Amino acid sequence: MLNTIDHGNVRELQLARPPVNALDPELVDTLTKAVAEAATAAGAIVISGREGLFSAGLDVPALLALDRAGMTGFWGSFFRLLETVARSPVPVAAAITGHSPAGGAVLSLYCDYRVMTSGEYRIGLNETRVGLVVPPVIRVALERLTGPHRAERLVVAGDLIGPNDALACGMVDALADSPQAAVSDAVRWCEGLLALPAHAMLGNRALARAALHRHFDHLGEDDVAAFVDGWFQADTQRTLKALVEQLQKKSAG
Amino acid sequence: MLNTIDHGNVRELQLARPPVNALDPELVDTLTKAVAEAATAAGAIVISGREGLFSAGLDVPALLALDRAGMTGFWGSFFRLLETVARSPVPVAAAITGHSPAGGAVLSLYCDYRVMTSGEYRIGLNETRVGLVVPPVIRVALERLTGPHRAERLVVAGDLIGPNDALACGMVDALADSPQAAVSDAVRWCEGLLALPAHAMLGNRALARAALHRHFDHLGEDDVAAFVDGWFQADTQRTLKALVEQLQKKSAG
Amino acid sequence: MLNTIDHGNVRELQLARPPVNALDPELVDTLTKAVAEAATAAGAIVISGREGLFSAGLDVPALLALDRAGMTGFWGSFFRLLETVARSPVPVAAAITGHSPAGGAVLSLYCDYRVMTSGEYRIGLNETRVGLVVPPVIRVALERLTGPHRAERLVVAGDLIGPNDALACGMVDALADSPQAAVSDAVRWCEGLLALPAHAMLGNRALARAALHRHFDHLGEDDVAAFVDGWFQADTQRTLKALVEQLQKKSAG
Repeated sequence: MLNTIDHGNVRELQLARPPVNALDPELVDTLTKAVAEAATAAGAIVISGREGLFSAGLDVPALLALDRAGMTGFWGSFFRLLETVARSPVPVAAAITGHSPAGGAVLSLYCDYRVMTSGEYRIGLNETRVGLVVPPVIRVALERLTGPHRAERLVVAGDLIGPNDALACGMVDALADSPQAAVSDAVRWCEGLLALPAHAMLGNRALARAALHRHFDHLGEDDVAAFVDGWFQADTQRTLKALVEQLQKKSAG
Repeated sequence: MLNTIDHGNVRELQLARPPVNALDPELVDTLTKAVAEAATAAGAIVISGREGLFSAGLDVPALLALDRAGMTGFWGSFFRLLETVARSPVPVAAAITGHSPAGGAVLSLYCDYRVMTSGEYRIGLNETRVGLVVPPVIRVALERLTGPHRAERLVVAGDLIGPNDALACGMVDALADSPQAAVSDAVRWCEGLLALPAHAMLGNRALARAALHRHFDHLGEDDVAAFVDGWFQADTQRTLKALVEQLQKKSAG
Repeated sequence: MLNTIDHGNVRELQLARPPVNALDPELVDTLTKAVAEAATAAGAIVISGREGLFSAGLDVPALLALDRAGMTGFWGSFFRLLETVARSPVPVAAAITGHSPAGGAVLSLYCDYRVMTSGEYRIGLNETRVGLVVPPVIRVALERLTGPHRAERLVVAGDLIGPNDALACGMVDALADSPQAAVSDAVRWCEGLLALPAHAMLGNRALARAALHRHFDHLGEDDVAAFVDGWFQADTQRTLKALVEQLQKKSAG
């Protein structure tokens, strides 16, 4: 479910869980371990998806089968993935190779740099539309990129936006002409950093990202419980189940 | 002095105090009560003005007649209006139907969304030009929209800017071709939010706006006194009286 | 090494230390005193450089000759210069008359306003490229202008960018067609502020810049020591010496 491709000193971790790179407990744990390992094995990391799709986000059908304990475990793991990316001691770029709603977009927020593929793809924190409340540790990562007011508007409306709008508001850093170019541009961006005096590049990076790291310092069981409470609310469950039915009809149709 | 127009589940509160929707003690209290009431009676609120003018800001001639106790009461009421808009449990959009200097612009900063009418209209915190110092609780609301440096430049210079510049710097969120379109676009924006799963939209909104709310947590008598002290300074009174004389000559001329 | 040119009530302090306005201990102290003095003698200050070059930044060859005590003294002085500009009781504009790498760019960050000359000039905090870590008190001043993520990218990569990019990301406020125009635009910008009611302009300015000032409140010996530690690291010394050799070959070539 994860392909490892080394481009010299840059390690690409390609999400490869058919059909839509949905984030289930296993993929989340696998990716967390791979990011932690890559940070010791390579000088920089690129997280990519498949052509046309970075990740569809959380695997809602799989997660709806979990009880409260299961969901609590999963959400703790998801926070650990985000923290692992945010605190990576080496640069991490996201090669957004296509659609990137919800969890897919969330993952990219903690990277150092995001290249998104141009075209009919959409990115966004559309949690509102599926009945979920975005935890503050996630919203602040978006605020860091877009400023607080633009983040408020995006998150409250649950907007999915195209590459040009994502670039204009700062949600991504650059566009690429194709999924392949998104990967190669992300690799090249990493190589640019690796050509610099390492102690200074890494020292400046650690200081510049300290404010992002701090959001994880006090993240704990209460934050997990707040999200899990929301997940099991009747309103949320209804919205999520309607979403899954719609997806199943679509894939059957 | 305030027209209430319900557009389905969106309540428009139209400032209607001739000739220029100047904010005097009565309009401020009336609007505060109307916003609080609308938040229980409607799903969202639009604050609008008349064609060509949102609000000329504080009613300086009326306020110059107040003594220190009167001005202290008024300024406390004005802060309560801003807090009521900022903390509204339902979304609030500003339909900026024309000119919006000083107090008019200030009011719009606490809304969720601002649509400004294109054309020869101006918006801005021009307090510097009339001798006033903008209280921090107001400046931080502008900083939230434009970033701290752009807010510094706008407030220090007391700039009144046109719709395109206001859009470019983030002071407004969208432009409309006419005052009527500003209102209908603001209503449609509210309707867009009301079509979303309500618990998630409102939950995300409450979290995203918590930082804005916090600025009011410790706002108190000292902040009112600081503004009132400034108001009664000789320099300020001179500048304000010169402004009023100029306005009277203009309206007589 | 510093020309003082009064334009009415606006005092221009022109860096004039041939060949490249490099910041050595003497220029830093001279400029600090001149800024402090100008703030009492004039209504506003413009800091400018020579045609084609604002400042090449720190005088690395001179500073490499200092021992730890010397470098500690110098870095404390440099922080005092930045604090003096940041806390100036009167507005300060930077007329960026040409190239402005590293220390030259750093100095401009604390001004109220930056006009950069269009053309083939470059500005940036390229400390990473010479092996240095940018102290937080400097990075936050850049974050204030560009937002935290753009600042992270600029500082980590040590990018030197052109005038159009600097304007687009907020690192400068305006462009001018020539070095002379950068100075006259900066002077005119100051005159604009000086035409406003002084107590309100200065009162709004003090409040708007209070967050910038606060970064200096706790700046002390530890922050100086952190930079000096970095300066004397073997990696840094190697990179700095290679830089100086390259510069000497260039000037000999």
